[in-house]
Amino acid sequence: VPTICVPDADTAAALADLKSIDPELRILVWDSVGPMPDGIDQVEFYVPPYVGRVTSAEDLGRMPALKVLQVLTAGVERWLPMVGEGVIICNGRGIHGAGTAELALAGILNHLRELPRFAAAQQRAEWDSEFTAGLRGRRVLILGAGDIGTHLAAALEVFGAKVTLVARRPRDGIRGMDELSELLPTSQIVTIALPNTPETSGLVDAKFLAAMPDGALLVNVARGPLVVTEALLVELSAQRLYAFLDVFETEPLPSDHPLWRAPNVVMTPHIGGGSVGWERVATELVVDQVRHFLRGEPLANVVSDGY
Amino acid sequence: VPTICVPDADTAAALADLKSIDPELRILVWDSVGPMPDGIDQVEFYVPPYVGRVTSAEDLGRMPALKVLQVLTAGVERWLPMVGEGVIICNGRGIHGAGTAELALAGILNHLRELPRFAAAQQRAEWDSEFTAGLRGRRVLILGAGDIGTHLAAALEVFGAKVTLVARRPRDGIRGMDELSELLPTSQIVTIALPNTPETSGLVDAKFLAAMPDGALLVNVARGPLVVTEALLVELSAQRLYAFLDVFETEPLPSDHPLWRAPNVVMTPHIGGGSVGWERVATELVVDQVRHFLRGEPLANVVSDGY
Repeated sequence: VPTICVPDADTAAALADLKSIDPELRILVWDSVGPMPDGIDQVEFYVPPYVGRVTSAEDLGRMPALKVLQVLTAGVERWLPMVGEGVIICNGRGIHGAGTAELALAGILNHLRELPRFAAAQQRAEWDSEFTAGLRGRRVLILGAGDIGTHLAAALEVFGAKVTLVARRPRDGIRGMDELSELLPTSQIVTIALPNTPETSGLVDAKFLAAMPDGALLVNVARGPLVVTEALLVELSAQRLYAFLDVFETEPLPSDHPLWRAPNVVMTPHIGGGSVGWERVATELVVDQVRHFLRGEPLANVVSDGY
Repeated sequence: VPTICVPDADTAAALADLKSIDPELRILVWDSVGPMPDGIDQVEFYVPPYVGRVTSAEDLGRMPALKVLQVLTAGVERWLPMVGEGVIICNGRGIHGAGTAELALAGILNHLRELPRFAAAQQRAEWDSEFTAGLRGRRVLILGAGDIGTHLAAALEVFGAKVTLVARRPRDGIRGMDELSELLPTSQIVTIALPNTPETSGLVDAKFLAAMPDGALLVNVARGPLVVTEALLVELSAQRLYAFLDVFETEPLPSDHPLWRAPNVVMTPHIGGGSVGWERVATELVVDQVRHFLRGEPLANVVSDGY
């Protein structure tokens, strides 16, 4: 009996149609907080919740029949060490990319078009009509050419920005990471949209930041550990660089963390991918993946084939 | 002797190459503030400044040889009654469209992704991680399918918004103004990107606003008189609608105007089209147009053929 475990009743309801493929299909619901449902030891396809309590290695240990771990995040770094050989891990590519790119663009436009300056002027009932910068002709470097990076590039180009995408594997129109030292000094905006891996962790260090030109903006909507916070704080405190950050090395960011009081930084609390509507896209992905699984077809979004 | 008058020395310098077409070409510079230069009575092609003092009807009366008035704004409503028969008016289509659309998008994203809420939380060193709305699946109505409207639509669609363009002349994929009463009730965001003409002035009145659904956002980056401010103030004060406004019926907005203190509104001081970089695009347009003029070719951006 193929057994699937999903985090909520809505997703379970959306899977009901798939009983036409296998009438024996068994669908369990577990939010990773309450008690585990009966039959968890037979689960072959598990979808952990996107928010709330994180499923632990011990929890996964109680699913010895597990074949597929379908997560709803783009990053899988936390899951890789938790599953045994033979378990395929699929990520949530396509669920959060557009929403995360949208937040990066919101941060970039908020910075360039100086909305905080105008908000302050509005408070004072003051017509402060000095023109601002804009995207036209602006050189933007995007590290990561996946779902987030490509969405962001497409929107920036509508307004005439000069976008350069950089990826771990250079390919047509996409530059390699080894060209960073050449690209950074002419980039007025640098956006981080890479997964957090042993190779990328700490990538944005003092040397990386020093290569950015005066007055440039660093945007991180990917994962906190990609940026060395101490090094960034030095540049922010000197007011040499600006930053828009949605992710942090420690989340929630502790209330006594120096970033809260640093100049030149705008922060949001890791809300990039979670804009309203992500659940519907996530449910569509899960239904498609379970359908592939039941039919023995190749899965999408495979980031670890289990070996 | 063909005589051209432009508002600054940079534009004059860019025109110097055109002496290869007509070595007699005479280029005057007048910023519309200082004394008029000698030869103003022979000016055939006049470019008034984009900002600063507005050229008056009396000023134009001192250019009896005028054939072409090339303005650097998108809207020409102020110029139409000022020139006599036989003077062609060309607008600045292409100079400000992308920058104005960019500001509209900045306002939309600032609203949806609630950057002011997060700015306040940052002040309090508080991790307030409730998710926000986003563009995916959001229904956006754009009134005006010109330079601004089409740029904005392209960017919104990157993030999965459902965009409907409306124009005075309906055409393929663009709905007509007569369909507004049907379109408004399902539009969560309505952006005004129309020129100010006798037909559009006052378009956004109490009835128009009443047709918008609760919680919808009105964006005006076009011209102030398109919106009946009194009617908008009623909806804002009731906190039924939101607004992002870059233009106003009176500019600068007087410091005692009730909009400054109204809830649910974010305002910028008519800076939509003026982002850094517009001058270069404007100069390119002026050079192209003067070249056409000297060669007797058709001009671009003709909004009034003089008759």
